[in-house]
This record gives sequence, C-alpha cells and structure tokens, in this order.
Amino acid sequence: MKMFIYTFLFFSLLATIAFTTEASVVDFCVADPSLPNGPAGFSCKNPSQVVAEDFFYSLAGKGDTSNIFRWNASFAFASTFAGVNGLGISIARSDIEVGGVIPFHSHPDASEIILVTKGTITVGFVASTFGNRVYSQTLRKGNIFVFPQGLLHFTYNIGKIPAVAFSSFSSDNPTGQITDYALFQNDLLTEIVSNGTFISPREVKRLKRLFGGTN
Amino acid sequence: MKMFIYTFLFFSLLATIAFTTEASVVDFCVADPSLPNGPAGFSCKNPSQVVAEDFFYSLAGKGDTSNIFRWNASFAFASTFAGVNGLGISIARSDIEVGGVIPFHSHPDASEIILVTKGTITVGFVASTFGNRVYSQTLRKGNIFVFPQGLLHFTYNIGKIPAVAFSSFSSDNPTGQITDYALFQNDLLTEIVSNGTFISPREVKRLKRLFGGTN
Amino acid sequence: MKMFIYTFLFFSLLATIAFTTEASVVDFCVADPSLPNGPAGFSCKNPSQVVAEDFFYSLAGKGDTSNIFRWNASFAFASTFAGVNGLGISIARSDIEVGGVIPFHSHPDASEIILVTKGTITVGFVASTFGNRVYSQTLRKGNIFVFPQGLLHFTYNIGKIPAVAFSSFSSDNPTGQITDYALFQNDLLTEIVSNGTFISPREVKRLKRLFGGTN
Amino acid sequence: MKMFIYTFLFFSLLATIAFTTEASVVDFCVADPSLPNGPAGFSCKNPSQVVAEDFFYSLAGKGDTSNIFRWNASFAFASTFAGVNGLGISIARSDIEVGGVIPFHSHPDASEIILVTKGTITVGFVASTFGNRVYSQTLRKGNIFVFPQGLLHFTYNIGKIPAVAFSSFSSDNPTGQITDYALFQNDLLTEIVSNGTFISPREVKRLKRLFGGTN
Amino acid sequence: MKMFIYTFLFFSLLATIAFTTEASVVDFCVADPSLPNGPAGFSCKNPSQVVAEDFFYSLAGKGDTSNIFRWNASFAFASTFAGVNGLGISIARSDIEVGGVIPFHSHPDASEIILVTKGTITVGFVASTFGNRVYSQTLRKGNIFVFPQGLLHFTYNIGKIPAVAFSSFSSDNPTGQITDYALFQNDLLTEIVSNGTFISPREVKRLKRLFGGTN
Amino acid sequence: MKMFIYTFLFFSLLATIAFTTEASVVDFCVADPSLPNGPAGFSCKNPSQVVAEDFFYSLAGKGDTSNIFRWNASFAFASTFAGVNGLGISIARSDIEVGGVIPFHSHPDASEIILVTKGTITVGFVASTFGNRVYSQTLRKGNIFVFPQGLLHFTYNIGKIPAVAFSSFSSDNPTGQITDYALFQNDLLTEIVSNGTFISPREVKRLKRLFGGTN
Repeated sequence: MKMFIYTFLFFSLLATIAFTTEASVVDFCVADPSLPNGPAGFSCKNPSQVVAEDFFYSLAGKGDTSNIFRWNASFAFASTFAGVNGLGISIARSDIEVGGVIPFHSHPDASEIILVTKGTITVGFVASTFGNRVYSQTLRKGNIFVFPQGLLHFTYNIGKIPAVAFSSFSSDNPTGQITDYALFQNDLLTEIVSNGTFISPREVKRLKRLFGGTN
Repeated sequence: MKMFIYTFLFFSLLATIAFTTEASVVDFCVADPSLPNGPAGFSCKNPSQVVAEDFFYSLAGKGDTSNIFRWNASFAFASTFAGVNGLGISIARSDIEVGGVIPFHSHPDASEIILVTKGTITVGFVASTFGNRVYSQTLRKGNIFVFPQGLLHFTYNIGKIPAVAFSSFSSDNPTGQITDYALFQNDLLTEIVSNGTFISPREVKRLKRLFGGTN
Repeated sequence: MKMFIYTFLFFSLLATIAFTTEASVVDFCVADPSLPNGPAGFSCKNPSQVVAEDFFYSLAGKGDTSNIFRWNASFAFASTFAGVNGLGISIARSDIEVGGVIPFHSHPDASEIILVTKGTITVGFVASTFGNRVYSQTLRKGNIFVFPQGLLHFTYNIGKIPAVAFSSFSSDNPTGQITDYALFQNDLLTEIVSNGTFISPREVKRLKRLFGGTN
Repeated sequence: MKMFIYTFLFFSLLATIAFTTEASVVDFCVADPSLPNGPAGFSCKNPSQVVAEDFFYSLAGKGDTSNIFRWNASFAFASTFAGVNGLGISIARSDIEVGGVIPFHSHPDASEIILVTKGTITVGFVASTFGNRVYSQTLRKGNIFVFPQGLLHFTYNIGKIPAVAFSSFSSDNPTGQITDYALFQNDLLTEIVSNGTFISPREVKRLKRLFGGTN
Repeated sequence: MKMFIYTFLFFSLLATIAFTTEASVVDFCVADPSLPNGPAGFSCKNPSQVVAEDFFYSLAGKGDTSNIFRWNASFAFASTFAGVNGLGISIARSDIEVGGVIPFHSHPDASEIILVTKGTITVGFVASTFGNRVYSQTLRKGNIFVFPQGLLHFTYNIGKIPAVAFSSFSSDNPTGQITDYALFQNDLLTEIVSNGTFISPREVKRLKRLFGGTN
Repeated sequence: MKMFIYTFLFFSLLATIAFTTEASVVDFCVADPSLPNGPAGFSCKNPSQVVAEDFFYSLAGKGDTSNIFRWNASFAFASTFAGVNGLGISIARSDIEVGGVIPFHSHPDASEIILVTKGTITVGFVASTFGNRVYSQTLRKGNIFVFPQGLLHFTYNIGKIPAVAFSSFSSDNPTGQITDYALFQNDLLTEIVSNGTFISPREVKRLKRLFGGTN
C-alpha cells in the first residue's frame, strides 16, 4: 500500500501541475478589476490567491429607502461580488417601503426572476407586441415571477408592511435602465425628450427638476 | 480519366448522401413558420424545398409615414425574411419625413447599426450609467452609428428632405419596445403608469388618448 | 388631432401585425411540453395563448423532508415553470431540517447562487484543481454563496432550526447529479462501482441497500 | 433503517418525477430526425426511448478510396450519430492512400483537430490575413494539428503507406465546403467561375469535366 | 419636494457609484487596441473616456477601385470602429465599377446581408451540400440578399453604372478569405496548390504571377 | 498586365493593413499565458509572432501509468496547446494498463467523445434522471462513445493488452473532477464527507489514507 501511496502522490502531483495553468479559465474566473476587462467580463484573479470569501456575499442588511421611490436595491454583481464573474448569474436585494415602487425600467442584457421574502407586491412587464400587452400578478411570500430580458417592468408594494424581494439575473453583471433616469436625469434637451416621447415640454421640465436633469 | 470520373461521381454521390440530412442544420435553416419554433428560432424548411428567393428580400419601397411620428419602418426579419433564421443578423428600413422622429425605444435582444442613405438625422442613445449620459451625433449620407443592445435611443430628421436609413441588427428576429406604446397604448391603469413614472395622471391620460390606450 | 389618432391607430395596427409572427421567438418563449423540444429548450407556446400565470410560480410551501437527507427541494424549472423557457435562469427552494444535509452533488450545466432566508447552513464546493481545494463558508439569513458550474458541492444545516434556502441557476432547466444516487441507486455492478471508486465492495453493497440500488 | 429506506424510496420516486420531464432537455438530446429541426439542431428523441447504442458509433472500417483524391471520409455527426446532437462536438475518420490528398476545403462552422493514427501526412491552413500566410506541419502517428474555423486547409499523404487520421470538430453537425466541388461540380456558368477566380475559361471547363459540373 | 430632491440626488449618486464599475462590461465595451485582446474581442476602453465619436463612423467616401477586381471595400469593424466591439455586428461598404467583381470568398465567422444602394449586381453563394447547389439573384437598389456563414459567395456588377453595396455582418470583427489570395498570393508550392485543387501547374503559376504569389 | 500587378499589390497591401489589427481576434487567438486571462480564455499572442508550431502538438508518447489507477492522461488543452485557445475544442490521450481504470469523474464544462485506438474498454456514464440510469458499451479499436457534459462516467480496460484512447472535448480548456480526489484527497473533515455521502467514517478514513487526504 505504501508503494501505492507513493506512486499515487507522484501521479496526483503531475495531475495538479497539468491542471493548474488552466484552473483560472475553467473552474472559475474570480474578477480582478485591477486588470483589463473585455466583452466576456473581468480578467481572472490569480487562482492561487482566490479564497472562499470571494464566493461569499451578504445581502442581509436593509438599504436606505429615503428617496423618492421609497425603494433601495443592493447588488451582488461581478463588479462587487467577484466570484460570479463569467458564471452568467447574479442576484440583488430590493427593499420597498409601504407605497413604494420600483419604477418602470428594463435590463438590457438579462432576464430576471423576482422572489418575495416579505410583504405583498404587484409586478408586471409590458410585451413589445400584441398591442403592448401587460402581464401582471400579485406576489406574496414565496411567490416568484419572471421578467423576460429587456422588457419594461415595474413593482409596487401594495401591502401594509415593507416588502423585501430578491432578484436573480441571467447575467453576472447586468445593468438596469430606469426610464425616468434615462429621460429626465441627464442633459437631454427638453425639446428632444418631448418630441421623442410626446410628453408636454412643461411636464418634461417638471420631471427634469424632480429627477435632477438639466436643459 | 474516364475511370476517374466514374468512380468520382460515385464518390460524390456518397458525399451528397452523407451531407444531405445535416444540410438543413448546417448550411442554413430557412424558417418554416408552419412548424413549431423554439428559443433558438423557427424550425427549418425542408432544405430540398429551399430556393434562391428565400435569401432575397426587397426594402426598395418607401413605407407609409402618415402617422403621428411621420416615420415608417419595414422589417426584413426571420418572421418575414425566412433566409436569415438562425443566422443572427437582420435589417430594416426607416423612412422619416422632415421633422419626423423615431421615438425613444429599445431593442431587448439586439444591438443596431444605423446607416443613412438619404438626408440628415440626429441620433443618440442613453447609457444606464454615469448619470444616464447621452451619446449623440448628427449623421449624413454614408455615416453610421451603433446603438448598444437594450439601451433607449432616438432618431430625428433634422434635415430639409425626407430621410432614409437602414438599420442592421445583431439578431435575426429582433423586436423593439417603443416607450410610448409600452406606457400609453395598452390598458395599464393611469395610476400605475403615473406612480411608476411620476408623469402626472393628467398627462398620462392625454397620452393614452393620443396613443390609443385605455384606463 | 383626430386625424392623427386615426392614422396612428392604423399605423400601430400595422406595427402589431409586423411584430406578431416573431413575438413568440423574441419577447419570450413559454414552454409547450406537448411540442417537440430541442437542444435549446422546449418549443414555444402559441403567444396568443400566453397568460400572466405562465410567468408566475409559487415556492411558498415547505416540501416533505421525511427522507434520509431530511431535505426537500422544489423546482421552478422550465419543465414545470413554463415562463422561463429559453431565458437562461431558474430557481429552486430547499428545506433542510436540523442536522439535515444536501448531499454532494453537481449541476452539469449550471452555476448556482444559494441564498439563505432562514437558519444557518455551512456550504462548500470542491475545485477540480489545486489539490482539490475546498471553498467553504457558513451562511446566515441574507447571505449568499456561489457554486461554479459542474463542481461537487454540499450544504449542511448546522443550526438549531430548520433552514430554508433559495438557489438560482444559470440555466432555465438545470439538472443535478447526486453522487450517492449515481453510484448506489441504480443497477451498476458492485464490482464496477468499487473498482471505479476504490470504495470497498462491502461498503458499496451497504450503500446500494440504503439507496435502493441493485447488483 | 428500514423506515429510512421506505421514506427514501418514496422521496427518490418524487425526485425521479421531478426530473423526468426536463431530462431530454438537460442531460442529453439524442437526435430524432423524424421531428422538425432548428438552428440549434435536431429535436430530441423521447428520453425514455434512448438506449446506450445511441451514444455509440463505429469508425473501425476503412472507407472506399477509389476516387480521384484517393481519400475517404466517414462521419460521426449528429445526422448519423444521434447521441452528439446539441453537444457541440463530433468526429470523422479519413483514409488517405499513398499520394492521396484531402483537397483544399473549409468548415464554415467548426474548428478541427486532426490526429494521425497511421502514416505520415503534411497538413496546413491558410490565414486570411498577413499576406494569406500558410501554417503547415508534417504529422506522424500520435501528432495533432488544429485548423481554426472556416479557413482553407489541406492534407497530403506524403508517406509510403496509407494514412489514417481522425478529425474532431467543435460542432456536432459540421459541414465542409470543398473548393473544387463549389467551383466545378455544379451548374455555375464557366464565365462566372472564371471572372470570379481569374482561372482561364479553358481550365474551368477542363475542371468542370473532371468534377462533373455543367455549363 | 425639496427634501425629495435632496435625498433623491443622494440616492442617484449611490446608484451611479453602484453601476460605475460594471459599466464598461455591461452597457458597451469600446475597443482599446492598446490593451490585450482575447477570444471574445478587444479589452474595453475606460468608460469614463468613451465619447460619442466612438460610436460613429463614416463610410461616405468611395474607395480606390484601381485594382484587378475594380472593387474596393471599406470596413467598419471593431479593429477600426471601436464602438462595436463585443456587440456582434459590423458593416462594410463595397464600390464595384462597371464589370467589376467581388471574387469568390467566404467569411469564416459571420453571415452577411448585402444591401444595394446604387446600381445592379448579381450575387450568389454555393451550398456545401446538394451537389454544391448555387443560390443566386440579381439585386437592384433597395434589394437585399443573405450569405450564410462560411460559404463561398460572389458579386458581379452587371449594370451600366458603378454599384455601391453595404454589407452587414453577424460579427463585430469578421474576416474574409478570398480564394484567389489564399491559393495564389502566398508562398505555397505550385505543386501543393495544383495537387490540392487539380488546377494545372501552368495555370497555378500564371495565377501566382497575377496575384503576387511565389514558388 | 504589369499595370495590374502594380495596382494590385498596392491594393492587397491596403487589404493587409485593413485586416492586420483584427487578425488576432478573428482568424485565431493563440494563447499567451503571460497576459491576463478571462472568462472566454487566454489573451491572444501577438499574431505576428504566431508560428506553425503553435498549432501542432504531439500525443505520441505513452504516459507513466505507475499509479493506483494504472492510467495516465496527457492533455492537449489551451493551457499547454496554445493554438486551440478560443476554438472550443481540445483533445487528450489516455493509456490504460490491463485491469486499469479511469475512475468515476465528470467534466464540468465539456462533453467528451472517446475513440479507442488500441485494446478493448468498457465505458459508461450515469444519467441524473430516470433512476440514475447507466448507459454503457464495450469499445474496440475504431469505436467511439460520447459522454454528455457534466455527467459521471468511467472507463475500464477489460482486455488482455494495454489500451489507448483519445478523448475530444467540446471546450478548448476543459477540466475534470475525479470523485475520489474531490472527496478523499483534500482536507475535508471525515465527518463532512461521511455525512454528505453516507460512506462510513471508517471507510472515508481508509480512502483518505489511500488518496492522500487529511482530517
């Protein structure tokens, strides 16, 4: 048996060598934001420096909801949760106060499954076809709903207590475009926004003031 | 040499047999909308029925622009241009009258390159980051601009003549979600639209009337 | 304005027609298990038959944990949750009694993010390199951990109360291979299992009895 | 323990049910050519009908090389080797007589690794850049060479015995376009071939006679 | 309301921070050729340095057609048009003089849609199956045709005026392999070319002289 | 004609320039392990430094089988065979002595086709469904078998001579997780391994001694 162990360790040593160089490419590719990134994601951290904590993240804390939406989102994306880089999945936590809302927005590069862990919310998305049909449901604890990639969707806390929901995304580094931010939080000319949405110039100006836009 | 030709034809016959069954999967997969479709696209038309016309389409005609945007789009997508099914590319033509506009919209599943062949237009897209920064340019004949996947973008005819542009998409069957249609052309409750966008209920009702929405 | 609305409705009608045929391919592809499926997933349900409920699922109920692992998993996968078909994401709920375990297993085609909503668990995965290094952490409510695709991983309820966790997957229809089931729940010859794992024949036979295998 | 086994079998029964419907999508998707196919491949055979033989194929036999190239290829592709459907890999066997050749050809949708198991061959491919640089090597038993996707490549038996090589492809259903067949084995007008290649009309006609083309 | 704006700006600031690091990965990945590139494309330019001009390109100018084909191509690919990096789409302009030709060539990694904006051309591609069947059409202004990935295709100006066409590709950095260049513009031995194509050595030598090849 | 050659060389020079920068991205991306790598693989070697040898590798030599499995594997993966980087395919050689075995293992990110070139082996894989059904066959010279991605599989030399097999993978840098290594070659606590597999603590300790694990 000794002989076995000997030759065996020798063999497994070889095996380790054979696999080491490809490790970072194959088993996982923990993000190293200090290196260049590309269309597929961040460069990989040196695998010998990877630790268990790279695969851990906490969304235990409630975020600050003292804003106009009475909503806060905390993200566990590759940019902050290095372990998911290249794995095509990520997650976020939303806290929505009573009467709060996650405004109309879309995720240009990911589908989303929302899971309610506290409270009661109404969610929905708008299809780009069939007369822009709306698919909406009310969700309670343990219920889920899926928003197909890129489509406008919304969430309302219609309950009597603050709601908590966790959203999983089919991308390890998704983004989100909030319609109000896109139209009213930047320096787009009021005329351009109005002509491109048919919202009256006066209303556009009011919303720009509300969301911090200019022009 | 005769002998060669003989055995050769025999061989190429074998070759043809060997490749025939996989042809529809490999060389091309012309859409057959009469069969089931799936996440990857339409089922393939029997390759022996495929003709050159399946790979041809005409966008020569100007579309009807007698609508509120003074814009018309004609699509050469897999649903109408069967030859591109599964190939990950498609194209469309836009005619925009003087003063016309392609309103704010996004393509949930495709990036777009727009090419101007007539007139002068101003195009732009809004990033979902950096304070929703706007990237905009004015395009003349022969100029192109790219809209990254899923981001809101717009086009204005700022010239003195009708404009014509051709848009290529990184999907063989892209869709487009026009913000106005999504918010104001369906049966979403005015209250929901207003709470999810902060547009005043009065303005929402006006826009619903304009775009044909209800509630 | 009336004229506008008129021509507009006419136009949007055209638009609807233009987009209808591609809708099922583009916006979503709700699974219709009655049609053939392929490498990319299930065929799409006729989009005109799709309802909001297709995008809804409930994981509110606790599963039956009266088994040897004292663990139950409920799956919201494309095979049961039709709305996620083709979207590259799905979710499952695990209930783990005190002292219960999710045994060593892997997901051949998906990475997994596990989120704890109740209790305290210890999770870990084994890398295929670096001397099969183990990456392990203890998770409490609100903590998450990611298991890279295809690697063996495990979960233990080390707390004093039943634990609940939700796992998101980077596939809309993942599967899982539990090592014990693969080795001891089928008709593989004891000799083959033993020679291929170096587990003693006696132990293999004991485990086959335990897991319901034969031979 | 008996109790355990009981509840356990009950549990595993549930498990089996839970996974059955997704099996064909997840573990494998054996091709069923009698069903429609799509861009992602063939539809899946009913998994309950799948047998071990579906994953087995034999390339043991030498093919008929009595043709102008003194070469024969046998294919284990999804169209004939159902088990690889959707798995992104396939393999083929080539027999090349002394002095035989695999003529210039390309694989539009796959990269290829060629492995020599008998004889001595010279292989090479032409890059589309750097002045169409040629990368060529001589291979003996146990040597391999890779041809990047879509590039023209060739193989010569330069040895004194018949050669045997196995080619693996990064597609489960690749195709191959042999330049001679594409130019000289169909009904393309001699004028078109000549103008599009600058090969003299006389030579084109000679080659059309040789390869069985017309016009 | 003031209070709202305050907390709101504070919130949106947070939001901006939260999204900044992932921006370059998610919204777009403008090519920075000074950094390493990989299988997925070029590394991303620092997003804070990205300007609207990165998404703009001009193909307005006619290229120099004083060559043997009387054809010129201008490319808007990721290597020159940084904004499309990672987006899976690009475009090129072809100018073809009367009697000019785009010789037989293929794109190893992209399908192409060609759009005619001036003149009359005949296009076609050769399938690798069905006896190398040819699919050909004549195109006029506004007509399009699609060439499936990797297949040999050709274009002739059969009209009485110079033709202009724009080709869109399903890759942001496609390449093209011109058969004449691959066979006759490099240092491949005449014997190898002749044996691998059956073109007579004399003809090969004539074409090597014509295209600048050696040996 | 001289004039032609002149203008032609000038043109092809332009073409070369136009294509050079994108070459490394498009034609091939030979691995340069000295640069950062990412989820899509290694960075590309400067194409002007690429040589034919980068696409060549030898698996001619028999490996050292003096280990407990009497098996050796030699890998031609991107980490050692730079030419396949990004091409989605790789290959390995296995030598299995009489009575030797390739133990139960899985490839988390690749499907495998095994080809026998010498001897007689029995291979099989275990499905994760249908009661963990086993698909097994006996292979002789020239026979092949496919192991779908991520599923546990095994190989036995059941013949009277040493066996040689070549395995192709649908990844250019696959890894493999050997169940025995994952469970018994690291520092996982015996208690954890036993609780997560139901293998008796005594047996776990014996196997840890055998495979070099601790704790």
